Amino acid sequence: MSDKMFAIRKIKPEQGAEIQKVPIPEIRDDEILVKVIRSTICGTDLHIYLWDHWANEHVGPYLPLTTGHEVAGEIVKKGNKVSDFEIGDLVSLESHVVCHHCYQCRHNQYHVCQNSKILGVSRDGAFAEYLAVPSVNAMKNDPKLNLPPNLMAVQEPMGNAIHTLIPEGDPQDIAGNTVLVLGCGPIGLMSIAAAREMGARKIIASEVADSRREMAKQMGADVIINPKEEDLVTRVREETYNVGADVVLEMSGAPAALQAGLDAIRHGGRLSLLGIYANPVTVDLSEKIIFKGLHVYGIIGRRLFETWYQLQGLLNIPRFREKIQKLFTHEFPMTQIDEAMGVLRNRTGIKVALIPEFD
Amino acid sequence: MSDKMFAIRKIKPEQGAEIQKVPIPEIRDDEILVKVIRSTICGTDLHIYLWDHWANEHVGPYLPLTTGHEVAGEIVKKGNKVSDFEIGDLVSLESHVVCHHCYQCRHNQYHVCQNSKILGVSRDGAFAEYLAVPSVNAMKNDPKLNLPPNLMAVQEPMGNAIHTLIPEGDPQDIAGNTVLVLGCGPIGLMSIAAAREMGARKIIASEVADSRREMAKQMGADVIINPKEEDLVTRVREETYNVGADVVLEMSGAPAALQAGLDAIRHGGRLSLLGIYANPVTVDLSEKIIFKGLHVYGIIGRRLFETWYQLQGLLNIPRFREKIQKLFTHEFPMTQIDEAMGVLRNRTGIKVALIPEFD
Amino acid sequence: MSDKMFAIRKIKPEQGAEIQKVPIPEIRDDEILVKVIRSTICGTDLHIYLWDHWANEHVGPYLPLTTGHEVAGEIVKKGNKVSDFEIGDLVSLESHVVCHHCYQCRHNQYHVCQNSKILGVSRDGAFAEYLAVPSVNAMKNDPKLNLPPNLMAVQEPMGNAIHTLIPEGDPQDIAGNTVLVLGCGPIGLMSIAAAREMGARKIIASEVADSRREMAKQMGADVIINPKEEDLVTRVREETYNVGADVVLEMSGAPAALQAGLDAIRHGGRLSLLGIYANPVTVDLSEKIIFKGLHVYGIIGRRLFETWYQLQGLLNIPRFREKIQKLFTHEFPMTQIDEAMGVLRNRTGIKVALIPEFD
Amino acid sequence: MSDKMFAIRKIKPEQGAEIQKVPIPEIRDDEILVKVIRSTICGTDLHIYLWDHWANEHVGPYLPLTTGHEVAGEIVKKGNKVSDFEIGDLVSLESHVVCHHCYQCRHNQYHVCQNSKILGVSRDGAFAEYLAVPSVNAMKNDPKLNLPPNLMAVQEPMGNAIHTLIPEGDPQDIAGNTVLVLGCGPIGLMSIAAAREMGARKIIASEVADSRREMAKQMGADVIINPKEEDLVTRVREETYNVGADVVLEMSGAPAALQAGLDAIRHGGRLSLLGIYANPVTVDLSEKIIFKGLHVYGIIGRRLFETWYQLQGLLNIPRFREKIQKLFTHEFPMTQIDEAMGVLRNRTGIKVALIPEFD
Repeated sequence: MSDKMFAIRKIKPEQGAEIQKVPIPEIRDDEILVKVIRSTICGTDLHIYLWDHWANEHVGPYLPLTTGHEVAGEIVKKGNKVSDFEIGDLVSLESHVVCHHCYQCRHNQYHVCQNSKILGVSRDGAFAEYLAVPSVNAMKNDPKLNLPPNLMAVQEPMGNAIHTLIPEGDPQDIAGNTVLVLGCGPIGLMSIAAAREMGARKIIASEVADSRREMAKQMGADVIINPKEEDLVTRVREETYNVGADVVLEMSGAPAALQAGLDAIRHGGRLSLLGIYANPVTVDLSEKIIFKGLHVYGIIGRRLFETWYQLQGLLNIPRFREKIQKLFTHEFPMTQIDEAMGVLRNRTGIKVALIPEFD
Repeated sequence: MSDKMFAIRKIKPEQGAEIQKVPIPEIRDDEILVKVIRSTICGTDLHIYLWDHWANEHVGPYLPLTTGHEVAGEIVKKGNKVSDFEIGDLVSLESHVVCHHCYQCRHNQYHVCQNSKILGVSRDGAFAEYLAVPSVNAMKNDPKLNLPPNLMAVQEPMGNAIHTLIPEGDPQDIAGNTVLVLGCGPIGLMSIAAAREMGARKIIASEVADSRREMAKQMGADVIINPKEEDLVTRVREETYNVGADVVLEMSGAPAALQAGLDAIRHGGRLSLLGIYANPVTVDLSEKIIFKGLHVYGIIGRRLFETWYQLQGLLNIPRFREKIQKLFTHEFPMTQIDEAMGVLRNRTGIKVALIPEFD
Repeated sequence: MSDKMFAIRKIKPEQGAEIQKVPIPEIRDDEILVKVIRSTICGTDLHIYLWDHWANEHVGPYLPLTTGHEVAGEIVKKGNKVSDFEIGDLVSLESHVVCHHCYQCRHNQYHVCQNSKILGVSRDGAFAEYLAVPSVNAMKNDPKLNLPPNLMAVQEPMGNAIHTLIPEGDPQDIAGNTVLVLGCGPIGLMSIAAAREMGARKIIASEVADSRREMAKQMGADVIINPKEEDLVTRVREETYNVGADVVLEMSGAPAALQAGLDAIRHGGRLSLLGIYANPVTVDLSEKIIFKGLHVYGIIGRRLFETWYQLQGLLNIPRFREKIQKLFTHEFPMTQIDEAMGVLRNRTGIKVALIPEFD
Repeated sequence: MSDKMFAIRKIKPEQGAEIQKVPIPEIRDDEILVKVIRSTICGTDLHIYLWDHWANEHVGPYLPLTTGHEVAGEIVKKGNKVSDFEIGDLVSLESHVVCHHCYQCRHNQYHVCQNSKILGVSRDGAFAEYLAVPSVNAMKNDPKLNLPPNLMAVQEPMGNAIHTLIPEGDPQDIAGNTVLVLGCGPIGLMSIAAAREMGARKIIASEVADSRREMAKQMGADVIINPKEEDLVTRVREETYNVGADVVLEMSGAPAALQAGLDAIRHGGRLSLLGIYANPVTVDLSEKIIFKGLHVYGIIGRRLFETWYQLQGLLNIPRFREKIQKLFTHEFPMTQIDEAMGVLRNRTGIKVALIPEFD
């Protein structure tokens, strides 16, 4: 093994990405070195590529940086203290490297660790031939399943989908409930597929883009709404005998979708917020949240590692695997990072995979 | 409508059942009169038919009695105060008529109501042309589903299955977990089908009877064990990478199964007890429950009405409906109650339905 | 017993109240007739007295109406079906008369019943010599405690306080947590006293009115902030070693308090919203709720009847009883309803009791 | 600082303990060296001292060993990677050194870690001048509280008490509930004091030893029963208006106490098992657990670190601190380990502290 590798790097605070040859990362004694097999691209990666305001503020301080945070690979080296993994294990990686000693970590709320570093955001990431992470960030893939690379790489965002479905501590199961998914990007689509496996009574999806509504159908949504053409609240009421949706997943970041969701959710229902709003939102808290007795959850990251076990458990189900595979509309070698970002930017792609080929 | 009806009655404290013509029940102003479409037979009904020690003690005081408690029918009459149902609604019935005012009811633990009367056990029941129940005991079946009669009648024991999977208040979802089902009678089998729809990672079933192991496979069990031929604990360990089962459902009432379950469950796992033990059982509480940090739930009845909404939600799923249909091995007119009890007694039947035909 | 009684009535859609002689209510067979011993006045009652926009919209359709919903009394008559209470029982009353058959009721979320009638709002209430309610709305006071009338009458709003502390289904105990109470009206003050008995690590109260800050101290708040004079967020950070508050109760309905609360709450904390906002509020959902991973609960009413058992349990503790007694700054005979409303309107009173004297 | 220290050591598999001079422990880069300020003695330490069957089996493989696991001290040295503590911090120590990578640890069930080492049981412990532990095992004591040494040392078993009161994941709060404590050893007594601060409606304690019943009263028990002189079940029924106890803590390890607890607990109640039974116990699972719909929890260790935050939160309450102080009946220098063990063995002591004096 050479001591150099190729990586997709953000060097300057401006749009674009550069492919560089850099040293293969050193590992600490509690870390593993992972040879990347497959990475996938997240909306956050596009923000960083395009270098918008958010990227400048959150990623700027960490330049130069290897980007990417959705990844699977093979362990090729491990530190002296790593006893839980073997060389050759195929692992998927949690992107939040947490401190284990802040107040939140000590309450097992690692997803809101106050000192976390995130792969490809504030610590060298996954769009490279190799990356180093603490071994505790790795989840081994069951060798018997022979998961295809894309299904290993996509587990991190799949974890977001499932965390949105099952927020920390909420006692209400998905089984038997009507779930309304607002926004059918990759995470919304994965949440549909997951809700289908978790016994949802009815899954209602709302999305403006035709191709994504079609994909929502393939994921198992029972009712698919184009909110430009049909009144979402009216339809949800019809589909639920006027009760409203039990569980609403706001995946779009669109204020109008949130407002519709607040009208479509039943009194006493559960609302998970994953989509990021570009600006503050004006909400009629009294009528829509207080008098309705709602439970509202802000969702970030995944629960370490309950959510990971849940998603890997679902990946045991053949039907679920087949569905998730369909989300992959494009694959590019890492050398074509600009093309890959292009299909996300123009929204022709849904989930885009990167193969660590640099020749 | 005549004022008389046929009913299967227990008159004397001895084996058997008699078909009698009795008055159609009067209803109170908060009750409905249900014309029976289909009943199904439970193990408890067989105990009452055979009149064993348990029956004599628990049912003796209520003779003479119309038996049966698993039932669906059509509302043909309703009391003045009944506003939540219409004549013609097709309903399934909760068998526990609860008081709503004891300490348990006021804590929303209706399944352990201290004053409950049970259809066919301590109050006239379902093996008849008509029965009267409070309207709050009815759950309307979605007319759009056009459920076949057997799937309407079997919801009460299906509720037991789901309550065993999701005990009151336990925060651990089935999704992602390995579930071990000990004993594949009708409720065990339904719990397998339900766990399959709720995202279980792997379902392991244990059963000595060949026909029931075959049925467990059709319900969706991933691993099926004959504990007479294979060591259950060893197999569970193999199937779980030596972790043990996350969730164990003891459905058999066999002490040996319980002991194996206590060895096969993982540390920190959840054990639900539904099977009834004929005698007290000797358990190594220190090693098997305390040091393992188990959560153990005694399961009785169903949660009113969360469990009902969960099961009716699952019935929205075509695959689930098809599976449950398979459990019905026999159908008899009510006049053939002796034959119907016979196929349960000799264990050739799994789920046996009764049609209210008395001609 | 005469068949007439005095009652404080809202006759016309305008400010004020009238004392009228009206028939003593008839009871249905599941109801009780309660001879009022003591009522207390809620902010809602003041809104109805003053007849603001909210009152006109929500109460207007129900005029003429006997007002008042916080009450205790003695059962003097009961319907034929009432078996859970005896004549002479001293009871406190839940103000929401729920339907028991809507989707929410059947999920044991009675506080968001879709058909509820509220005493003194949409059904004749408590500012009278007698009122009729379903027996299931009554909670018997332990005769051994000999609770003074004010402590019997104030249990309904005390239930709001405890529901805000312990929202439906949230798994995080108050024990060991830092609780921030925003707004020290009667319900905020009772929540302080309750949190003190439930093992809160530290209770921080924020209130602009001097007299209420003084009362917060007597309730057991450890830190009391005047947000006009001190930066609340800075102080909370200091008091929590920079962690933030674990649990925030927004009791004020003031948008500025909410914003401060969103800054003062820790990542992963729990926010309960009880205070009603006069207008929609603009919230930075992304930064303050999503990235912080908050759990937000809209609080209305009380959980039937878990919250009631919790509050009656706390009333067993002498120290708690003594504190709650201190909240009663004024008592008036019902004939002086105008004076009673006056001390609330000019904010000289905290909790004001009404004695059913009409001579 | 010398490189040698005194320690109480178990050298041979037989009764007794030896004081030896041994090297001060080396620390790894994630560990801290703690100078012991105070240790306390647990029943387990007595078993090890007396060297019974359990000790031989569980501790035998780890000899020679420094014993003791309840301890507080000052950090005098820290490894390179320790960033969460400073030299001079006063810390209490979690006794379970967990692996962080087994299935249980990754589900945040550290108390049932499959690879844990326990101070003084399977790893050098606390009856010494110094000990080394991973920094993550330390909980810093709030310097503003100036806790006396005994209250710093006793937090580990206090954690057992609180874990028994609040099992992992159970949704039922202590507030408002009647708690029955069976067995008033140190942990039972601490659970009484804690339940008192957590809003229990009524605390009923059962204990045969006079001195411990007296102490139960001082801890805040409302009802204290000598089960040799009074029928426990009858009394609990009387004290709960025939409902039974909501929450039962079995702290005694006596089968008769367990049986009484199973009769005294209400239907739908919660039973925590902490006391260790010397032999398997015969339980009428059907009548006492299944038909009663009980939730039963095996309790081991403490939840890392939710329980620690809960207990440290309670230690903020002056009344609670004063109560716990009363439990300390004896203090000995470590040189008098034989005398210290003697007062536990003859049951004249309740909680016994050891001061690290070896001169």
